Amino acid sequence: MVDVSVTPSRPTAGLDEVRELAQQLRVDSIRCSTEAGSGHPTSSMSAADLLAVLIARHLRYDWEHPAEPANDHLIFSKGHASPLLYAVYKAVGVISDEELMTRYRRLHSRLEGHPTPALPWVDVATGSLGQGLPDGVGIALAGKYLDELPFRVWVLCGDSEMAEGSMWEALDKASYYHLSNLVAIVDVNRLGQRGPTELSWDLDAYARRVGAFGARPLPVDGHDVTAIDAALGDAGSMTGDGPTVVLARTRKGRGFSEVEDREDWHGKPLPPEMAERALIELGGERHLTLRGPVPEPSGRPWRPDRGSAQVALPRYELGARVATRKAYGQTLAALGERRDVVAMDGEVSNSTFAEDFAKVHPERFFEMFIAEQQLVAAAVGFSVRGYVPFASTFAAFFTRAHDFLRMAAISHANIRLAGSHAGVEIGADGPSQMALEDLAMHRAVQGSTVLYPSDATSTAALVQAMADQDGVVYVRTTRGAYPVLYDSSETFTIGGSKVLRASAGDQVTLIGAGVTLHECLAAADALRRDGIAARVIDLYSIKPLDVQTVIAAAQDTGRFVLVEDHHPEGGLASAVLEGLAGVGPLELSVATLAVRELPGSGTTRELLGAAGIAAPQIADAARSLIRAVTDEAAG
Amino acid sequence: MVDVSVTPSRPTAGLDEVRELAQQLRVDSIRCSTEAGSGHPTSSMSAADLLAVLIARHLRYDWEHPAEPANDHLIFSKGHASPLLYAVYKAVGVISDEELMTRYRRLHSRLEGHPTPALPWVDVATGSLGQGLPDGVGIALAGKYLDELPFRVWVLCGDSEMAEGSMWEALDKASYYHLSNLVAIVDVNRLGQRGPTELSWDLDAYARRVGAFGARPLPVDGHDVTAIDAALGDAGSMTGDGPTVVLARTRKGRGFSEVEDREDWHGKPLPPEMAERALIELGGERHLTLRGPVPEPSGRPWRPDRGSAQVALPRYELGARVATRKAYGQTLAALGERRDVVAMDGEVSNSTFAEDFAKVHPERFFEMFIAEQQLVAAAVGFSVRGYVPFASTFAAFFTRAHDFLRMAAISHANIRLAGSHAGVEIGADGPSQMALEDLAMHRAVQGSTVLYPSDATSTAALVQAMADQDGVVYVRTTRGAYPVLYDSSETFTIGGSKVLRASAGDQVTLIGAGVTLHECLAAADALRRDGIAARVIDLYSIKPLDVQTVIAAAQDTGRFVLVEDHHPEGGLASAVLEGLAGVGPLELSVATLAVRELPGSGTTRELLGAAGIAAPQIADAARSLIRAVTDEAAG
Repeated sequence: MVDVSVTPSRPTAGLDEVRELAQQLRVDSIRCSTEAGSGHPTSSMSAADLLAVLIARHLRYDWEHPAEPANDHLIFSKGHASPLLYAVYKAVGVISDEELMTRYRRLHSRLEGHPTPALPWVDVATGSLGQGLPDGVGIALAGKYLDELPFRVWVLCGDSEMAEGSMWEALDKASYYHLSNLVAIVDVNRLGQRGPTELSWDLDAYARRVGAFGARPLPVDGHDVTAIDAALGDAGSMTGDGPTVVLARTRKGRGFSEVEDREDWHGKPLPPEMAERALIELGGERHLTLRGPVPEPSGRPWRPDRGSAQVALPRYELGARVATRKAYGQTLAALGERRDVVAMDGEVSNSTFAEDFAKVHPERFFEMFIAEQQLVAAAVGFSVRGYVPFASTFAAFFTRAHDFLRMAAISHANIRLAGSHAGVEIGADGPSQMALEDLAMHRAVQGSTVLYPSDATSTAALVQAMADQDGVVYVRTTRGAYPVLYDSSETFTIGGSKVLRASAGDQVTLIGAGVTLHECLAAADALRRDGIAARVIDLYSIKPLDVQTVIAAAQDTGRFVLVEDHHPEGGLASAVLEGLAGVGPLELSVATLAVRELPGSGTTRELLGAAGIAAPQIADAARSLIRAVTDEAAG
Repeated sequence: MVDVSVTPSRPTAGLDEVRELAQQLRVDSIRCSTEAGSGHPTSSMSAADLLAVLIARHLRYDWEHPAEPANDHLIFSKGHASPLLYAVYKAVGVISDEELMTRYRRLHSRLEGHPTPALPWVDVATGSLGQGLPDGVGIALAGKYLDELPFRVWVLCGDSEMAEGSMWEALDKASYYHLSNLVAIVDVNRLGQRGPTELSWDLDAYARRVGAFGARPLPVDGHDVTAIDAALGDAGSMTGDGPTVVLARTRKGRGFSEVEDREDWHGKPLPPEMAERALIELGGERHLTLRGPVPEPSGRPWRPDRGSAQVALPRYELGARVATRKAYGQTLAALGERRDVVAMDGEVSNSTFAEDFAKVHPERFFEMFIAEQQLVAAAVGFSVRGYVPFASTFAAFFTRAHDFLRMAAISHANIRLAGSHAGVEIGADGPSQMALEDLAMHRAVQGSTVLYPSDATSTAALVQAMADQDGVVYVRTTRGAYPVLYDSSETFTIGGSKVLRASAGDQVTLIGAGVTLHECLAAADALRRDGIAARVIDLYSIKPLDVQTVIAAAQDTGRFVLVEDHHPEGGLASAVLEGLAGVGPLELSVATLAVRELPGSGTTRELLGAAGIAAPQIADAARSLIRAVTDEAAG
């Protein structure tokens, strides 16, 4: 049972002991949720036998050293079974019964309603279904192709979440990449939140689906400890060519006759008097402490070595026309000298220019095809293993992964995203390809960073900065080639900005980023010919915002024209207005230019004009602001 | 070949004529994209034989009457093959060769880079892959269960997009609902944008997958017109128990030897001199006009009858504690008296209270299980058929469908969404279940409406208003039960607001919505005890915003406390600040209270307090604003 590479810390538990452990996990799932007054005991009880066998006899994990790189991974994709997970942590002796009973679902507790990495043994936050398995694919990719360590990734899945398309993206990629180190254990308990699942207990149907997707199905009676033990031993053998899916037929609420396999018991703690009867039926409280095998220590630190290579950023000539997406690719390729940098793309690497990385570092590039949820989840998985992942696709298509971005923030994942082809600037392809809501989406992610450089030099500097920035970090790049504005000696910092035009007599400030900055510069030139001095700010860091520069401009000029290739809600203008909100009353007139109507096809120039965000309209807006005050003074 | 229910408008085209037509479709795909200087001719050429057979001999469509409810539907899920679609429109005589050659991808043209309903024969905008088939599921659901008309939904899919999980959500639901009226035609041309697809020409692998998902696979040589004809005849027979997937092995760029089955020709028009050679190889220009069968007219209007039943809204007693999610369900059930109202839910109808509708109108309720992309796509499909769809799930999980919301706006779909369990208010379940970015997401959708009522009475009124509101319309509901604030005689309009506290001497305005409005009211009471008069605005319509009321409050009180159970970016505060941006300088001090840190578990009261959005903190923020000005005056 114990692999040769494993150091048994004690004799492997026998199956009778495992059966006792399973009952303990059930009892503790009930106890903690009843005490908390909320939680999902029945969804925990169905999987208790599976987890008891797994942790006692198969999971290789040094519980004293969760940062040991050789440890297996255990992910609860069905995050609502948190009582079971925390009962497991008690059973292996890393949390106390007291913590379980008094802290579950409490304020400032690490035993949250759904698991988060507030606990050192949790890799990723779960609770939005269909994410744990895709995240596990990323971890398994790192293990097989980069770490080259024999750890396994065990993912407990619910049957309801098999309806999420992301689960099939995950199995597809797991088989494409031959991830024999990935084991999904599906707790087929037949009942979802409000009633039966689509496929009920039809294990054959599940087996056909996972088999067709290139995984090895292992159907098993999820309450037969002997059968489970055989199945997990087989699943964890890493002998196959792809992932294994253990399909466990189980009964929700297993072990307590009043709720077992009954509807209307999802997500409900047992009332105290029922819990008492349940404990009697389950044989009462137990306080076994029991650990399974421990892996051979890897002798490595958790974070992969970044290597000693120096990163030489690409340099661009002032005035040369270079697309920021191209600068992204070239910078990423240069960053690839760091051995901890990995990249992945959604089958558009010749558009995002992630291909520049792929060409020089093919061993650290992962093609995720057109599956943006799995694309982001893979990045999260690499982040779990300490890598510095960059994921790219068209900016519009990251909306596909919004829920994964939201959860990545809760997971404290450090992932970098590059979205190309933003806004109406892209031209003829039309609105389906135009990101016009991406800034709003990425800004609203907790703890995120949002960058939108306007030229190749600033792109290179900011993409380099992204590598060492924590959280969910996004850079928006542009399709077309625009003049390089900055010499390579300029510095760019996350949270900074650049004032490109300024004088003591500035009457208005034009603020743009990306393509609209170039329009602002042209508008400032036009205004100057009218004798109007305009300040121009390159707001390349949309979040965090350089509030000081913005405030100074407001105080100095009293007029803002905010211009963005984005819908008017939640983007650059909102960032500026939110940033100024706490400052106190300002004598400030503001015009906001954004894409208000549904755009169509056309040339870039036509579409910028049609949306009202081109230089002439910026200059007009500035003139109107100046005229309004003049009129008022005259009136 | 022609079904008995079909009126042939002319003799069915023979296969030789179909072969000529296919060459014409290729030639026209090349001509229009070369002339436009952009587009995807090679992705069109692979599917030309499929479409020629389909439109000449199988698609039942009255091209003069696109609003005939008995018409089949034709959706290009691979929207980038727009040259082929528009070549089809020329071939059936609804657009001219001149329009095709001069308007494709031009400004203000209806022949956009990817199809949109700017054209009367296009049901839904496509171009973000993996959406046309899920949309088609919604249309097929309407056809089978509500319209009870024998139309078929034909969806041309790309092989690359089979990597999107949403395609498998679609097939899963299509088989669950026995949609034998749905036919997917997968153009397996082996090449994606940047190289080979995952499964290449492995039709067996595709067949196993679609078969396992309950669809009937029909592999076919996609360039053998006779074989295609047989396959489409079989596929369209509606005899099976579920959907059919025609798996067509094709060659990208088929018919022009210089590009056929070659990489690096994705999304590139042929240069003029190559296009000339291609036309010679393809036998030159043709201008066939050729239509297939026409369905027996249904004798009905496009929009389903709403019936004559009066909707009696639920009424609530002032002060009674009612959750707005409960009011949503009760109102939806009442609205169900209208026969055009349909509802669907993501397997949480006992939480969103969509179950109240399901109980009284089970025939118009569709369980979509945990598949939020398909949930929204189904709503889009029902909208195509003229129904009034309401889709519900936890507010957080609509982020899963962000790309579908974005595309729904481009599709001019009229869909209503209800997201429950918003914000930290939900309590112990923790951040994975808390929508804290939904207002930002929904606001940034083009032409959207975003509502966030605070009590049951306003919820009922606004949910009723949603039924007749166009576009993507969202209502955010709250988990907990809070006092009814309004008598049922009050009116609530989209774009309105309610001033709940006001006096001539108001020193500050507190603006909230949903749970924070109740906190604002409590704060106003506390301030009154300090002798401070506070105005309180119920900002139930976040978009469109009641700018006049907000401006008046700014002018009257000079101080705003904006409070939201949402991240600080893009939500209620942003809406107010954006709304005021164009007004001109205002003497206004603003405090914004929002959820800035990552929340955990806890009680509602604890979490509102921890986030700093509870009544005491609102009152403190108001006092600080007042003190700041007083200090300044004293200083």
